[in-house]
Amino acid sequence: MTAITTVGVDADDTLWHCESLFRLTHKRFLELLSEHGDEARIEAQLAATEKRNLRIYGYGAKGFTLSMIETALELTDGAVDTRVIREILAVGREMLIEPIEPLPGVEHALAKLSERYRLVLITKGDLLHQEQKLAASGLGDLFAAVEIVSEKDADTYRRVFSRHGTGAEQAVMAGNSMRSDILPALAAGSWGALIPYPLVWAHEAAEAPVDHPRYAELGSIAELPGWVDSLSAS
Amino acid sequence: MTAITTVGVDADDTLWHCESLFRLTHKRFLELLSEHGDEARIEAQLAATEKRNLRIYGYGAKGFTLSMIETALELTDGAVDTRVIREILAVGREMLIEPIEPLPGVEHALAKLSERYRLVLITKGDLLHQEQKLAASGLGDLFAAVEIVSEKDADTYRRVFSRHGTGAEQAVMAGNSMRSDILPALAAGSWGALIPYPLVWAHEAAEAPVDHPRYAELGSIAELPGWVDSLSAS
Repeated sequence: MTAITTVGVDADDTLWHCESLFRLTHKRFLELLSEHGDEARIEAQLAATEKRNLRIYGYGAKGFTLSMIETALELTDGAVDTRVIREILAVGREMLIEPIEPLPGVEHALAKLSERYRLVLITKGDLLHQEQKLAASGLGDLFAAVEIVSEKDADTYRRVFSRHGTGAEQAVMAGNSMRSDILPALAAGSWGALIPYPLVWAHEAAEAPVDHPRYAELGSIAELPGWVDSLSAS
Repeated sequence: MTAITTVGVDADDTLWHCESLFRLTHKRFLELLSEHGDEARIEAQLAATEKRNLRIYGYGAKGFTLSMIETALELTDGAVDTRVIREILAVGREMLIEPIEPLPGVEHALAKLSERYRLVLITKGDLLHQEQKLAASGLGDLFAAVEIVSEKDADTYRRVFSRHGTGAEQAVMAGNSMRSDILPALAAGSWGALIPYPLVWAHEAAEAPVDHPRYAELGSIAELPGWVDSLSAS
């Protein structure tokens, strides 16, 4: 029998929309640069810049904004209109102040989970921005702890679940990213519940560990409380 | 008698140089824009942009880079050469990968403190960047815990010192910023040791609480272990 004490939950695209906002910003970026090349080429260059900068900028809207500016300069060899740069700064700021609305079923599921388990929010991104999103979501009080981390690897989950719970073996991690939420949590000895979101950032995609004994793909976050309960019951 | 169990230490300009790097970047920024106005005007506009953006960008080099780009566009009403924008991106990246060297006496003082107290690093800034600076400094193993926070107020110190210690009343906070390290720590009930650094960011300046019974201004970090020991002895 497994005694689950702690449930880790991802934030962006698990509790509220995020990737859809990045996609909208991408689309706006392509429009702004439309006279400088076809969409595929601009898209590819932006992805390459983002990837190259991830190591020094990390995750989040500020680094993404800097990468958009860099891409606009590179793609046009400096011939971009400075109004485009202004516009990129503006869309970047909009990402940071976008209103936050919990996804359907989130509040109910978290409330139910918080009655029986220690709920820990575990998320990447800009520190201040993630704190502001959590505050704006109204979900903050449901969490026993919040960990904003620069990378989600097995060590991160071991550390967080031993700090805020009774170790990784008695913890479930739930989120929409196979690569960040599920695979490293399984590697740490935790259970992993994938809660699919229609859009996945290319960087976060990975194969599903379909035969893994501690893994499940759920239909929605509404199924999470029942699934976690079933682990302790079995 | 006071039983100090925990010592919080600031990072930037307490353990290693930081403001000097920001000043160098400021200087480079003024040079880049020198044909668009006198230094005082450019400096004032940059400070105003930084202050206005602090609420959404928070602290750190990425937000500062975005504010420099915004200032360049505003000051020149969009007429800035895009090579200047490229250069600003480059100096911003340089800030993020600048080598880190502990200030004189830091390693010895921390080693001494870590023998008798729980040492906690408490710092603002970009999450990933601060983690990278700590790793590069070689000081990481001396700390029992690291807290990278979006704001340093009395609540922050209460929370951190109760999570990693035995409460704010049995903790000392040491750092170079009166406004961020000392005043809120005193307000939380902790002791505060100012370790002056020659440069102070205007945003961090504040009056010294000279008569406060739990405050001291030290000559350097080398005096910190002795001062903390003296609190428990008295």
